[in-house]
Amino acid sequence: MATVQETQNSHSSTTKNEHLPLVYYHRSPSFNFSINQWLEPSFRLLEPDHPEFSSLSQTVKALVVVGPTPLTGETLDKLPGVEIVVGTSAGVNHMDVAECHRRGVKVTNAGDAFSEDVADYAVGLLVDVLRRVSAADRFVRAGLWPLNGVYPLGSKLGGKVIGIIGLGRIGSEIAKRLEAFGCVIAYNSRNKKPHVSYPYYANVNDLAANSDVLIVCCALTKETHHLINKDVMTALGKTGVVINVGRGALIDEKELVKFLVRGEIGGAGLDVFQDEPRVPEELIGLDNVVLSPHRAVATPESMVALRNVVIGNLSAFFADKPLLSQIMPE
Amino acid sequence: MATVQETQNSHSSTTKNEHLPLVYYHRSPSFNFSINQWLEPSFRLLEPDHPEFSSLSQTVKALVVVGPTPLTGETLDKLPGVEIVVGTSAGVNHMDVAECHRRGVKVTNAGDAFSEDVADYAVGLLVDVLRRVSAADRFVRAGLWPLNGVYPLGSKLGGKVIGIIGLGRIGSEIAKRLEAFGCVIAYNSRNKKPHVSYPYYANVNDLAANSDVLIVCCALTKETHHLINKDVMTALGKTGVVINVGRGALIDEKELVKFLVRGEIGGAGLDVFQDEPRVPEELIGLDNVVLSPHRAVATPESMVALRNVVIGNLSAFFADKPLLSQIMPE
Repeated sequence: MATVQETQNSHSSTTKNEHLPLVYYHRSPSFNFSINQWLEPSFRLLEPDHPEFSSLSQTVKALVVVGPTPLTGETLDKLPGVEIVVGTSAGVNHMDVAECHRRGVKVTNAGDAFSEDVADYAVGLLVDVLRRVSAADRFVRAGLWPLNGVYPLGSKLGGKVIGIIGLGRIGSEIAKRLEAFGCVIAYNSRNKKPHVSYPYYANVNDLAANSDVLIVCCALTKETHHLINKDVMTALGKTGVVINVGRGALIDEKELVKFLVRGEIGGAGLDVFQDEPRVPEELIGLDNVVLSPHRAVATPESMVALRNVVIGNLSAFFADKPLLSQIMPE
Repeated sequence: MATVQETQNSHSSTTKNEHLPLVYYHRSPSFNFSINQWLEPSFRLLEPDHPEFSSLSQTVKALVVVGPTPLTGETLDKLPGVEIVVGTSAGVNHMDVAECHRRGVKVTNAGDAFSEDVADYAVGLLVDVLRRVSAADRFVRAGLWPLNGVYPLGSKLGGKVIGIIGLGRIGSEIAKRLEAFGCVIAYNSRNKKPHVSYPYYANVNDLAANSDVLIVCCALTKETHHLINKDVMTALGKTGVVINVGRGALIDEKELVKFLVRGEIGGAGLDVFQDEPRVPEELIGLDNVVLSPHRAVATPESMVALRNVVIGNLSAFFADKPLLSQIMPE
């Protein structure tokens, strides 16, 4: 039971935060990531268990979506005054952005907060797959070095053609890093980028046929679902490598598993899967894959950047200033 | 027993290759790497089991050292006509270079053949340690993702101060790559480099105190033996990371193990060890280290580059032309 002192404090704090802008805090309870401690100093958070939910839900104007919590029209129906949806991730496929835009609701994402971390991780996965870093670590830990002697050589980064799928903020950061390794960059995206000199392939199959490595870092949409299919992997070929730091469903995972098991592509570095946290059993025993539990996205340093962009978007909205990372309607 | 055909071939090939320049092929039988197939088309190789060894050993002018085969004054005593020692590795601590120079024997190493591969691998180890790539892969393979949920975040590369120890060819390639990640470079080497703008620290302790990461890629000499000692690791501090792609004995390994086990430094990525292939048992269970079986050095692509520099040095010597990668006397 709360002491008088605590009750008074709590009361005084409630009174105080009634002057703060109201923000609906949309978070799946199963998701163990919360950002309320970031928001509470500046905003008054509304959750469904709030005693005045029925009245406040009619007037709340801003909604923050925590991590990959799904956001549908059904949620928006219950919050008719919402004018902005502030996402906290780079990818927004868990939110019905089209429905938001149809209702005239603005949408923001994590902006640039995670781009460098994701790019670093993508490059780390690529070096790992090509040079067999984690497979070699397994070899050493299993005590095989003194028994088997020399570990098989990996493959050089320099000179490899890297096909980047999605040359947005993340893809551009990946390209910058890999140029320093002497890699040759090519890309696919919805449209050719006017100020980019890397060769552009409108068709992913053509990009795959001309690349040693595909790095998948585009948004997951209806159009990009299973973008990396059987044909693309066939075009990539036996020594080709796939790195995925986007979303699991960008790749036809069943086909990928078959190609890897049969040795019909060279290897893969996968931070994302179709049915996370489930990872296809067939991949567990393979030495030419690096498996990662959707951790490309963040470091403690980038979480600070995320806090800044989330608070920045909310503050800008309430001050009627330009948003920091708005997703524009197509 | 050889067939007549084989004997004839062998005889005819012996006759043919008597016109080729004679090269002493110095290779420890325990070492499972040989380059005779590279050399035989252009040179006549002399080994101790050759029927005419006693006479040819007095006249042979060139000696090639295969991999880390030790070369001492004792070997040179048996080959009094040797004028050049052609090494096939980047580091030459297995060869008594000072003794060669004292005798007026020229020495070459692998030159630039491996620099890019070593640099790539060093960066791969760093991304792996900071972002926990292979530890996360272990987590996934052990089936822990569905059980434990979110894997702990690693640490961002951008903004980290990377102290490079030895800013030669390899160190410079490492710096180039890490600049693209937004890292800040500092270095230590025997002397300040005149055309390099990175901050120089004459003292490794000072470099460690001002760095988040130390990357060790200098030559192993009497002066650099156990360069990374207790004091340096203390200066590096609790979150500091050590990457070693040089030689095991550059680090006081016993102290390193203590610092890692006690959490007195943050982590390590180790491609080399003091007593290879023995890896300290205490490291096997640690998640903040990446263990690699001395494989930073090479890829099939760089082996081609090595072949070119080895044959290039031998050909230049016999043609009295400038050597490609001569190690000059101090």
